[in-house]
Amino acid sequence: MPHNLQQATIIQQRINELASISETPGVITRTYGTDAFIKGRTLVAQWMQEAGLQTHIDHIGNVRGRLASAKAGAKTLVIASHIDTVVNAGKFDGPLGVLMGINLVEQLVKQNTRLPFHLELIAFCDEEGCRFHTTYLGSKVVAGQFDNSLLTKQDNAGAKLYDVIQAMGGDPTLLPQDAIPMGNWLGYFEIHIEQGPVLFEKNIPVGIVTAIAGQKRIAITFRGEAGHAGTVPMQMRNDALCAAAEFILEAERFASSHMQQVLATVGTLQIAHAASNVIPGEVSCTLDLRSANQAVLTSCFIYLEQLGEAICKRRNIAFTWEPVQETNPVKADANLNRLLTQSVQQAGYEAINLVSGAGHDAVAVAPVSPVAMLFVRCFKGISHNPLENVELNDIAAAVEVSANFIQSLIKKHNAG
Amino acid sequence: MPHNLQQATIIQQRINELASISETPGVITRTYGTDAFIKGRTLVAQWMQEAGLQTHIDHIGNVRGRLASAKAGAKTLVIASHIDTVVNAGKFDGPLGVLMGINLVEQLVKQNTRLPFHLELIAFCDEEGCRFHTTYLGSKVVAGQFDNSLLTKQDNAGAKLYDVIQAMGGDPTLLPQDAIPMGNWLGYFEIHIEQGPVLFEKNIPVGIVTAIAGQKRIAITFRGEAGHAGTVPMQMRNDALCAAAEFILEAERFASSHMQQVLATVGTLQIAHAASNVIPGEVSCTLDLRSANQAVLTSCFIYLEQLGEAICKRRNIAFTWEPVQETNPVKADANLNRLLTQSVQQAGYEAINLVSGAGHDAVAVAPVSPVAMLFVRCFKGISHNPLENVELNDIAAAVEVSANFIQSLIKKHNAG
Repeated sequence: MPHNLQQATIIQQRINELASISETPGVITRTYGTDAFIKGRTLVAQWMQEAGLQTHIDHIGNVRGRLASAKAGAKTLVIASHIDTVVNAGKFDGPLGVLMGINLVEQLVKQNTRLPFHLELIAFCDEEGCRFHTTYLGSKVVAGQFDNSLLTKQDNAGAKLYDVIQAMGGDPTLLPQDAIPMGNWLGYFEIHIEQGPVLFEKNIPVGIVTAIAGQKRIAITFRGEAGHAGTVPMQMRNDALCAAAEFILEAERFASSHMQQVLATVGTLQIAHAASNVIPGEVSCTLDLRSANQAVLTSCFIYLEQLGEAICKRRNIAFTWEPVQETNPVKADANLNRLLTQSVQQAGYEAINLVSGAGHDAVAVAPVSPVAMLFVRCFKGISHNPLENVELNDIAAAVEVSANFIQSLIKKHNAG
Repeated sequence: MPHNLQQATIIQQRINELASISETPGVITRTYGTDAFIKGRTLVAQWMQEAGLQTHIDHIGNVRGRLASAKAGAKTLVIASHIDTVVNAGKFDGPLGVLMGINLVEQLVKQNTRLPFHLELIAFCDEEGCRFHTTYLGSKVVAGQFDNSLLTKQDNAGAKLYDVIQAMGGDPTLLPQDAIPMGNWLGYFEIHIEQGPVLFEKNIPVGIVTAIAGQKRIAITFRGEAGHAGTVPMQMRNDALCAAAEFILEAERFASSHMQQVLATVGTLQIAHAASNVIPGEVSCTLDLRSANQAVLTSCFIYLEQLGEAICKRRNIAFTWEPVQETNPVKADANLNRLLTQSVQQAGYEAINLVSGAGHDAVAVAPVSPVAMLFVRCFKGISHNPLENVELNDIAAAVEVSANFIQSLIKKHNAG
């Protein structure tokens, strides 16, 4: 068996083993701070130690393994992904990057590689944010971007983040000590499944992320007038659902015509007091807007609000538009991406660029470090789903590309 | 105070008194067979007795009061409406017709009117069908149209209709005895609030119903593919909600352009496993179609199914279209309506014709008797709602019109 495929097999076995640790038997659910999470974390820490890393768990709950450079003034390259999951998750979202990272470092140790930079491998504790309705708890701490007001957040059972950190053995007052200082970062590298269909459709195993899309989430309501479906003539209606339908279609048309620069999704929709024989009086829905281009994102946001207002004015419907969440686009580092592109080509694959529509820990790290991400093809783009799948051959391809990438970084910094 | 306004005041007081009897304090809810229903029924029976009617409660639970004619071979004129309500109802939907009927008969008794037909006043027990998800339980029995298979129907708590009838003191095996035989009907007359905005918009107190719309209710599903809102390009999506939105808009446009001959309403819509960051994979909704014209109703049904199929074919969405309920249009009797039109004009009002989009007990009676209905204006067309309102002056107008109508019927049948 070729070396890369052999490594991919080991990685796959570990992914399966980690996936077997779940809050609920029969599915994969491992949200931040639960017993299953702690059990999974212990296993990952053990693998890091076996790989030859100085391993510890920080206060927020990340597993951190270090391979130090002997070079004076060496900076730190972070290789990371996350080990928490959504509810009823797939196996690969997060763990793929962590277990590929462990394998990568294991090879460097075996080869007695002399590093011109410190290498820190991190299994972030909370990227999905399912438990506390947050994002990037682990990576924010490492990037020194953690906001202490989050500590009072409660999970659905009423438990405070502050107390959960303590129960896990951390000290919530010491989180700042766990940050890697801004000047010490050499870069950040994350391997992750694409969670989208582009690589699958193009039949390419890996892709280079050029940007992580910014996102705006908007809560929209359409308020018309409820009425009897049998008695109010069509011309006298103020049907909130018809107004919403017109908005949904126009938003789709607008995003589709926007040269792949923006995604618009209405994912939830509720009719208040709905009944089959009642004209909908009030509809609320959410709009999810994403673009890698901040200017495009902003102009779409403005355009769609005006569009909704115009539709509702014509229909005599009250329209409200309330932004509820916002992240700015993040660009990958051009220098790191040049090396990553060479590494892909060196392995014999076409180097294609992708925008990540999903958020990743790189978003939290980007304010303090250059970031780069390698995407790995997943079956039909299916993710956050037990059907999430990555072929062994694609893991092997990613093993080769990421080994090339680290070697090129080592070479560059030895030369520098 | 003018006589009609005086009668309207009495009717209004009784409507208020009946409305105070509810399953839930503070709102009006009096569904079939509940304690509140039985309490309300007892009160109505008492009023009927006081009005001089031979009163009894039949097996299904209708209150029936009879004023017999001395004429040999006399047929029966039924004046009726219902006393059950929807959940959180208005006061007038049903009770207005019953309490106006009691008042009308009371006047006839006071005037020692000699009737050329038997007069039967009925307070139907279940028009809304909220408890057993049925319609017209009471009027179906009286019309001899009751289907015994309904007896096994269960309410949401699992109680069978059969047992509820027994608990109310009825014998479910004796329902056929309560029918008025087909040849014995002279006619059926019901006074009811319009439950629509036409009389309100036209500023006219009463209107003559020419037909009750037929109705088709269809359960529709759109099955596309769920996906991540941030990772699936617009061009690769099979968004079930966008397909549904296109259908909803087209159905609205089609019905609006159809010369007021058809009403189309999507009243319920659910997205399966909805989340703001997930492309909707499956949407189910209901379509309510109504028309007074059977041919129009049928052609709309066929057209909209084809339209949905065409939209979904183009979008690569699976479309299912399942008819779940159907009633045919019912025409009011031309002879009765001629007398009713004269009665309206005699009272000094413009005689306008309306189609009832809502179903009424007249639908159940129509197979065995000529039917006529008088609609009374309601505030803004609001119904099935605590805001449902009828002005005292409009009740007075309806008192006058219906007294005229009965007198003209008496005159006609005395002459005949």
